[in-house]
Amino acid sequence: MIWLDAGTPALLGLDWGSSSLRAWLMDARGIILHVHYARQGILNLPDGGFAQVLSDILTQLRLEYPLPMLACGMVGSINGWLEVPYLPCPAAMSQLANGLGLQSTAYGPLHIVPGLVKDGPLPDVMRGEETQIVGMMGTDGAGHRTVVLPGTHSKWAQVEEQAITDFRTFMTGELYAVLMQHSILGRLPATMPPDAGQRDEAFVMGVRTALSGVPLAGRLFSARAAVLRNRLERACAADYLSGLLIGEEIQVGMTAMDITPQAAPVLVGEQALCQRYQLAFTALGHHAPPVAGNTAPAGLFRLAQAAHLLDLPPTHFHDQKGAVA
Amino acid sequence: MIWLDAGTPALLGLDWGSSSLRAWLMDARGIILHVHYARQGILNLPDGGFAQVLSDILTQLRLEYPLPMLACGMVGSINGWLEVPYLPCPAAMSQLANGLGLQSTAYGPLHIVPGLVKDGPLPDVMRGEETQIVGMMGTDGAGHRTVVLPGTHSKWAQVEEQAITDFRTFMTGELYAVLMQHSILGRLPATMPPDAGQRDEAFVMGVRTALSGVPLAGRLFSARAAVLRNRLERACAADYLSGLLIGEEIQVGMTAMDITPQAAPVLVGEQALCQRYQLAFTALGHHAPPVAGNTAPAGLFRLAQAAHLLDLPPTHFHDQKGAVA
Repeated sequence: MIWLDAGTPALLGLDWGSSSLRAWLMDARGIILHVHYARQGILNLPDGGFAQVLSDILTQLRLEYPLPMLACGMVGSINGWLEVPYLPCPAAMSQLANGLGLQSTAYGPLHIVPGLVKDGPLPDVMRGEETQIVGMMGTDGAGHRTVVLPGTHSKWAQVEEQAITDFRTFMTGELYAVLMQHSILGRLPATMPPDAGQRDEAFVMGVRTALSGVPLAGRLFSARAAVLRNRLERACAADYLSGLLIGEEIQVGMTAMDITPQAAPVLVGEQALCQRYQLAFTALGHHAPPVAGNTAPAGLFRLAQAAHLLDLPPTHFHDQKGAVA
Repeated sequence: MIWLDAGTPALLGLDWGSSSLRAWLMDARGIILHVHYARQGILNLPDGGFAQVLSDILTQLRLEYPLPMLACGMVGSINGWLEVPYLPCPAAMSQLANGLGLQSTAYGPLHIVPGLVKDGPLPDVMRGEETQIVGMMGTDGAGHRTVVLPGTHSKWAQVEEQAITDFRTFMTGELYAVLMQHSILGRLPATMPPDAGQRDEAFVMGVRTALSGVPLAGRLFSARAAVLRNRLERACAADYLSGLLIGEEIQVGMTAMDITPQAAPVLVGEQALCQRYQLAFTALGHHAPPVAGNTAPAGLFRLAQAAHLLDLPPTHFHDQKGAVA
């Protein structure tokens, strides 16, 4: 008989995005037993599609019995495995847990977290970040918080108690990538590789121009002009551009989200990127926000708890094992 | 003997940019006798380079004698035929005329107009637009004007009497192109082609969000979210994005350039694009600026006059013809 003890798998959580997926095998207390990473996002599926990927993961994990499975991210989008309708924001954690979609698989049901939508004059959507935010709520005592999730489509979200009350998307990461790869700003070949200090300096120089009060559109070209005028090392132009974009995001975010000292931001996401954001916050005269790391597994665990996915008796798994064996 | 009468070629003017060139054969009064267009910008030169292109043009024009030649644009950049140093802004027309570079060719000297640079915390540069602005000065009675040159790198310039006193670049056209071609915003396939009215409506909807006071970075993603939420026809997403970018440019330009009613803007450039800008100005509650069309040939002619390139006696050309015949 298999008990849901520490060390015994109790939940398979997946963050299944556009270009990659992460899966976490967790025990009944949410402790991560195993991490699986694959470049098998919904846009890079192998032959056999979603079902094949799930089968590969379960085979690699050598799980011989059905397990509660919960996924978040683009797997629930119109191009995903099952389209799970967006929930309107504000949304409490309990509403997210009640809005799970249900895709049947050869290994039992796969539950999928819905995204959030904000309608109005500037519509906005998120898929996946709602789960990271729920994960952050669990590690954070504050009732009212701003959560900043840097990335391709950075999200700024307001959290109140156990609900997401507002959010806004900044295309910072994607703008940086397309401008570096495809615009004149990327055509500034490096002379010699700069050291980390020079790169940070160029980054901060970019961030600080956000203080000039002139929005991005009127500043972007300065990344080229500054190089032409020898005010910026060619090899540091990328860092300056990154600073321009992140500085703008923080300036706009801090103003638009009406952030009070009680609601000081917390950063959620990849370590190196969060550190760049910390540098930018301080360059703009703010406190450096704490970094919560990747809170997706914690969010999946909390949503699985709230949706009672972990409430099945241990024997259920045992029985199922018997059934498939 | 060849007289510099109406109808007699007196100047070859060239606007030689990155991707294409335009050449105008003008008489002694600046009247255009012939227009030549080629996709032989400084980045698309044939074997034989700059000299070959110039030779082809002169051969096509069947000019059998040397002629004053004046070029503006990227031909004077570091990757051009001859690097002509930027002049600092503010710059009077007479300073531009005195700062011409001189490249010797098989057909006599090619004069090249210098670009302008603005140093300071946000450096900026232009090459080619200074000539268009000089051309606009000649057609415009007002002493103090804002000239808006829409394009890949839109320029907003302040003109006072016969001088360019300030300017600023907006990467509007390039941002639109890279976002449509390479970002998630371009991945919104059209269902059916919209009519012009629908497209204008989506464009104005984009422009109007500039009035919300939230800068571009916090609005760009709405182009995607609005389609996902069925608030915007997929096929009109490009027009909405164009509206977002042009609306931002105009909002920022009008504020940053501190435009007084006396200095109401005038549009210089391609007709269809200028008309879109007119629509955007009115959607933002401004007067529609007049359109001056392409003023590059007029600018080249005025600079040639100011640099005394047209002052050579007619017999000079006759003699030269005799010399080369």
